[in-house]
Amino acid sequence: MKKIINQPENVVTEMIDGLVYAYGDLVTRIDESGIVISKNLEAGKVSLVSGGGSGHEPAHAGFVGKGMLAAAVCGPVFTSPTPDQILTAIQEADQGAGVLLVIKNYSGDVMNFEMAKDLAEMEDIQVETIIVDDDIAVEDSTYTAGKRGVAGTVLVHKILGAAADNGATLAEVKELADKIVPNIKTLGVALTGATVPEVGHAGFTLAEDELEFGVGIHGEPGYRKTKVAESHVLAEEIVGKLKEQFNWSKGDNYGLLVNGLGATPLMEQFVFANDVRQLLEKEGLTITFKKVGDYMTAIDMAGLSLTMIHLEDDAWLTNLNQEVNTIAW
Amino acid sequence: MKKIINQPENVVTEMIDGLVYAYGDLVTRIDESGIVISKNLEAGKVSLVSGGGSGHEPAHAGFVGKGMLAAAVCGPVFTSPTPDQILTAIQEADQGAGVLLVIKNYSGDVMNFEMAKDLAEMEDIQVETIIVDDDIAVEDSTYTAGKRGVAGTVLVHKILGAAADNGATLAEVKELADKIVPNIKTLGVALTGATVPEVGHAGFTLAEDELEFGVGIHGEPGYRKTKVAESHVLAEEIVGKLKEQFNWSKGDNYGLLVNGLGATPLMEQFVFANDVRQLLEKEGLTITFKKVGDYMTAIDMAGLSLTMIHLEDDAWLTNLNQEVNTIAW
Repeated sequence: MKKIINQPENVVTEMIDGLVYAYGDLVTRIDESGIVISKNLEAGKVSLVSGGGSGHEPAHAGFVGKGMLAAAVCGPVFTSPTPDQILTAIQEADQGAGVLLVIKNYSGDVMNFEMAKDLAEMEDIQVETIIVDDDIAVEDSTYTAGKRGVAGTVLVHKILGAAADNGATLAEVKELADKIVPNIKTLGVALTGATVPEVGHAGFTLAEDELEFGVGIHGEPGYRKTKVAESHVLAEEIVGKLKEQFNWSKGDNYGLLVNGLGATPLMEQFVFANDVRQLLEKEGLTITFKKVGDYMTAIDMAGLSLTMIHLEDDAWLTNLNQEVNTIAW
Repeated sequence: MKKIINQPENVVTEMIDGLVYAYGDLVTRIDESGIVISKNLEAGKVSLVSGGGSGHEPAHAGFVGKGMLAAAVCGPVFTSPTPDQILTAIQEADQGAGVLLVIKNYSGDVMNFEMAKDLAEMEDIQVETIIVDDDIAVEDSTYTAGKRGVAGTVLVHKILGAAADNGATLAEVKELADKIVPNIKTLGVALTGATVPEVGHAGFTLAEDELEFGVGIHGEPGYRKTKVAESHVLAEEIVGKLKEQFNWSKGDNYGLLVNGLGATPLMEQFVFANDVRQLLEKEGLTITFKKVGDYMTAIDMAGLSLTMIHLEDDAWLTNLNQEVNTIAW
């Protein structure tokens, strides 16, 4: 394992210290906890709190700030934070209008975030939850009942964060959340496994001439291994699967996110985006929102994912384009 | 070679197409050229033009936009664009107030950008140049006489871009450029080589337990290979060398950029930033500007660099913090 770290067991705490050092104008850390909280919270606004295991940077701490998350709870690498941690984040984030928890669909996260919700409600904090399950690769997985939550979560942060910043009530933000999540779908491809620092070797391996479609952001198995292929072949597979799921029509309005998984350079992400462009032009879709880069990574995994969102409502696009002040959007 | 590309010889043109597709609100491509130009040029303002070989994304096209570059010229991977290409970029970028060329110090770039300057001057376009040579690793290198230009170039784009956007004349921007460049210094460390798509294998290799200090962003040799070490050891070496060069005093005002080289995740960059923090606190420096992420990469090289800038003049910090509208700042 070649990594620029110190003791593997300290990687999350040192990472948070580095992040808060670099962006101390935007965020702060609550004591020695794994909680990164915005310095720009506004009384009376709904607060979004997200998080989960670390190793997906810039998610989620990179999306804390005005217009997105109020706080991010950073668990150990690939491991859910505890209910206590999440409860503290809820308490600190709440500005009197309640808290919406954005949860990626992993059993540990769902259990711990739900438990924290119960604890917070006992303290009369209003809490709602939304579970993101955008990964269409497989049904049920190593750590998940149902579909996994992956890069589409970042679009959920953005759309709901804009609504909350515009003064929506908790009930309104929750209603919006329930509408957008079924309209967000993601599929990825991995060229290598990811190495958890405390483990010291990749969670799975692929041969030098092999790739795998549908791998999860913790290295959970995908749906097919195949020989490495050109970018346009990967794009055809991924766009084809998304088309099956969305069942779109010509002229429909969509947004897209090409997301690098950690070790794949922007050069390759842009080449892939160009292949996606050609396919979507053939489909006759109207693509009004686009973003390319590392947003939800899997530590040092090589590969990428494509997220598409059906923009049923123009207001969602407005929310995606609304100004924010975060580290990484 | 495992890469998400199509034909290796098409990688730059497809990358530019993908970039312009994704960010067509900000930038456009001039015909089929390697020139990415801002959609927000303003008559009467000085235009900054930069570029060089591709493979350093988001540099330079990711920094085209209001407040930074007017245009970026993208050569083949790790190969200078031609004087003709650069001339076209100058012609298209010029808004009547002249053009400043920001050149990383590689012999091919220097020669071709200088030649383009001569050609443009024959057409009565005012052109000035600044050569960035921030890499303190070695004197003279595979493609360079003197010191190489690396990640510090991005800070040059930002500070000069802000000045140009504020209405500085070409002479004023050139004067500022001459002042800031000697105050910017960078040193990096590589864990792996970088693979040029058309070559198909890494330009150099390091053993599984080896790293190299001072490697260039095209894989040029550094100044020492050593066993892999903890992040704080790397930080001590790099900060120590920067200290020798700057010869700083307690209380001096500096900015820093931790820059990932392409395959190193943010997790590691933040851990390293935290080690740098501790060393600079001991030195008693005042660090008023900080940034962490992938800004000047070497395709898929694992590793990072630390750039520091001595902020002799408060106006430089103001320029670094001034609002921009680019893909990647």
